[in-house]
Amino acid sequence: MVRGRISRLSVRDVRFPTSLGGHGSDAMGGAFPLQHTDPDYSAAYVVLETDAEDGLKGYGITFTLGKGTEVVVCAVNALAPHLLNKDLGDIVGDFRGFYRQLTSDGQLRWIGPEKGVVHLATAAVLNAVWDLWAKQEGKPLWKLLVDMDPRKLVSCLDFRYITDVLTEEEAYEILRKGQVGKKEREEQMLAHGYPAYTTSCAWLGYSDATLKQLCSKALEDGWTRFKVKVGADLQDDIRRCRLIRNMIGPEKTLMMDANQRWDVPEAVEWMAKLAEFKPLWIEEPTSPDDILGHATISKALVPLGIGVATGEQCHNRVIFKQLLQAKALQFLQIDSCRLGSVNENLSVLLMAKKFDIPVCPHAGGVGLCELVQHLIIFDFISVSASLKDRYIRGVGRVCNQMETRNSFCF
Amino acid sequence: MVRGRISRLSVRDVRFPTSLGGHGSDAMGGAFPLQHTDPDYSAAYVVLETDAEDGLKGYGITFTLGKGTEVVVCAVNALAPHLLNKDLGDIVGDFRGFYRQLTSDGQLRWIGPEKGVVHLATAAVLNAVWDLWAKQEGKPLWKLLVDMDPRKLVSCLDFRYITDVLTEEEAYEILRKGQVGKKEREEQMLAHGYPAYTTSCAWLGYSDATLKQLCSKALEDGWTRFKVKVGADLQDDIRRCRLIRNMIGPEKTLMMDANQRWDVPEAVEWMAKLAEFKPLWIEEPTSPDDILGHATISKALVPLGIGVATGEQCHNRVIFKQLLQAKALQFLQIDSCRLGSVNENLSVLLMAKKFDIPVCPHAGGVGLCELVQHLIIFDFISVSASLKDRYIRGVGRVCNQMETRNSFCF
Repeated sequence: MVRGRISRLSVRDVRFPTSLGGHGSDAMGGAFPLQHTDPDYSAAYVVLETDAEDGLKGYGITFTLGKGTEVVVCAVNALAPHLLNKDLGDIVGDFRGFYRQLTSDGQLRWIGPEKGVVHLATAAVLNAVWDLWAKQEGKPLWKLLVDMDPRKLVSCLDFRYITDVLTEEEAYEILRKGQVGKKEREEQMLAHGYPAYTTSCAWLGYSDATLKQLCSKALEDGWTRFKVKVGADLQDDIRRCRLIRNMIGPEKTLMMDANQRWDVPEAVEWMAKLAEFKPLWIEEPTSPDDILGHATISKALVPLGIGVATGEQCHNRVIFKQLLQAKALQFLQIDSCRLGSVNENLSVLLMAKKFDIPVCPHAGGVGLCELVQHLIIFDFISVSASLKDRYIRGVGRVCNQMETRNSFCF
Repeated sequence: MVRGRISRLSVRDVRFPTSLGGHGSDAMGGAFPLQHTDPDYSAAYVVLETDAEDGLKGYGITFTLGKGTEVVVCAVNALAPHLLNKDLGDIVGDFRGFYRQLTSDGQLRWIGPEKGVVHLATAAVLNAVWDLWAKQEGKPLWKLLVDMDPRKLVSCLDFRYITDVLTEEEAYEILRKGQVGKKEREEQMLAHGYPAYTTSCAWLGYSDATLKQLCSKALEDGWTRFKVKVGADLQDDIRRCRLIRNMIGPEKTLMMDANQRWDVPEAVEWMAKLAEFKPLWIEEPTSPDDILGHATISKALVPLGIGVATGEQCHNRVIFKQLLQAKALQFLQIDSCRLGSVNENLSVLLMAKKFDIPVCPHAGGVGLCELVQHLIIFDFISVSASLKDRYIRGVGRVCNQMETRNSFCF
């Protein structure tokens, strides 16, 4: 049983100087020197305390790139009055209502709504609530979700603006069907983990020599799926893609990521020239807001065997709804702390299931990998029941087979 | 000639307690007590100073609803290093580059991009730059724009992500054609002003008696176009719409505004029941992010003689591009400080012209009416050359015929 009243919400601005090593650099630095060339992987880090005697705390983050973390921290503080002195039982007992309260604050809503800084802050705060709930139940988050009654689970989700695609009743039906074979899939996850891929070897900031060295190391470590950043310079991309494809051979999987570098016609032309390297997908070919643009790109590239992947900067369920409606993507990439925490992520997992589109979550540094594994393990056990075309992004120590850890984050 | 180096950027959190009188209340308060029922019309207010001897300052705002203004202020401070110690001549001399620099800061971009708090902050900052530029030229902003060479004007706009609909060359062609008859249209504006409508009499927070009294007063004052807030309760809407339509008679124009209250199917059903009151448009029927949803609603309502209007919470040119591509609106409502200042607003005006969709800007309190008149007067003189189906929103003292004032804002 959940217990305690929220007695304290603290938030910290945590930054790591990852820009010093060129890690995380992508094509947005190509033509304009001030874009994504110098990310400092960071987080607004929320800690919730209660007056319960168990002394348990809830930890939640949203991921940031350095500057601007203080803006998100400011937004977290603006949301804090909605939590302070509230019973955790009242929050999770009407989690849909509480989600709506946070995202529809009469004054704060204007500076969103449900997007950008306020939504990142909402994610950090609600991630902490979910963490606290899971800890009080003595379970990792994925297990809390897997064990939860489907009726209770859908009652946590806000279906506003998505009922034309997914009603509460349809969501319930999906989860009810997901109960079949659940136990076996849970055992499978515990025994074998979830498939992952690596981005660690092909950031744009790396030299060819570094790239070769990291690629060899990743092959040695047993990685079978590789992602390369593209979009700054076509000839450079051709050289790097050839290098990697030659190193990994024809059987292993190559993904490409343009980090929103292109306009729509440019994306189609550019990727036609990289098709020979057989990428599974092109990720973020253009603006994350451009649903119709992604649909156009998808229509042109699918006949070439290239899927479109996007989502790490898609700001809410309404955007994902439309990407699915418009057949604008073949791989859907949720972000565990850009969407409004578990609540909104689950509604997107359920819509993806309805459209039979695989979910391959965004991850990266500063706890993203930790957060996202819970969502995707739940997705496999209780929603999709499939591993076909599904990979989680991992970096650093996370390997081909994701471990399931014993806490939601960190 | 522009002159001076930016020596100081200050930003203030300005709030007015408008919630005390129920002004500005809309349907988002209907089912959930914490949405848009208590707006305190506010602004993040930016002042730019230079080291030039003229002593001129640039003033820019973004509009807010009270809480959260401090978050926008924090974001303005995060953007400030991009302006400080920079020559105004360098900024406006490569305004496209500067716009891109602000909106694509390598670290800040993540917490947008080009949406929500960081984009509101961008608008406030760039509104101040435009104000300073106009003042140094000794002209109101609309006149600075009208007199500017079309080549120079398009060089201020960022066409990234919209070239599939509008290229720089097409934008130039539109402006070049707009030169014909420009002088006559300018004289017309100076003599007669721009048509406006009033929202002042039908906020949801008003009683029927107050509504009647304000409506009589507005009729006496010569208003011919009226907007009523709907969406909280159907029977209540029917009563209020009947009351207003009876008071204004069959010839005058009635608009309806749902402030995002509905899901897509609900919007269609609800408006079918209000069709008898002959609204010109239904404004913001659903989520501002739902392009495909607006297209569905539009397809259903246009045969009933009702257009769809939206835009005050559409966060950038990519959303407007798609609304136009999808035939999702019949009236386009830019917001002078949600889009990235004049730069981004102009790209939307030009796209609207290409699709032959009238622009009816959002306005309201705290300087919005002051800001927007410059954009819409420029639109009439240099872009659309038409007043058909075009109205600016006015409240308070602004009357049917907007005055053209001698400064950009305040």
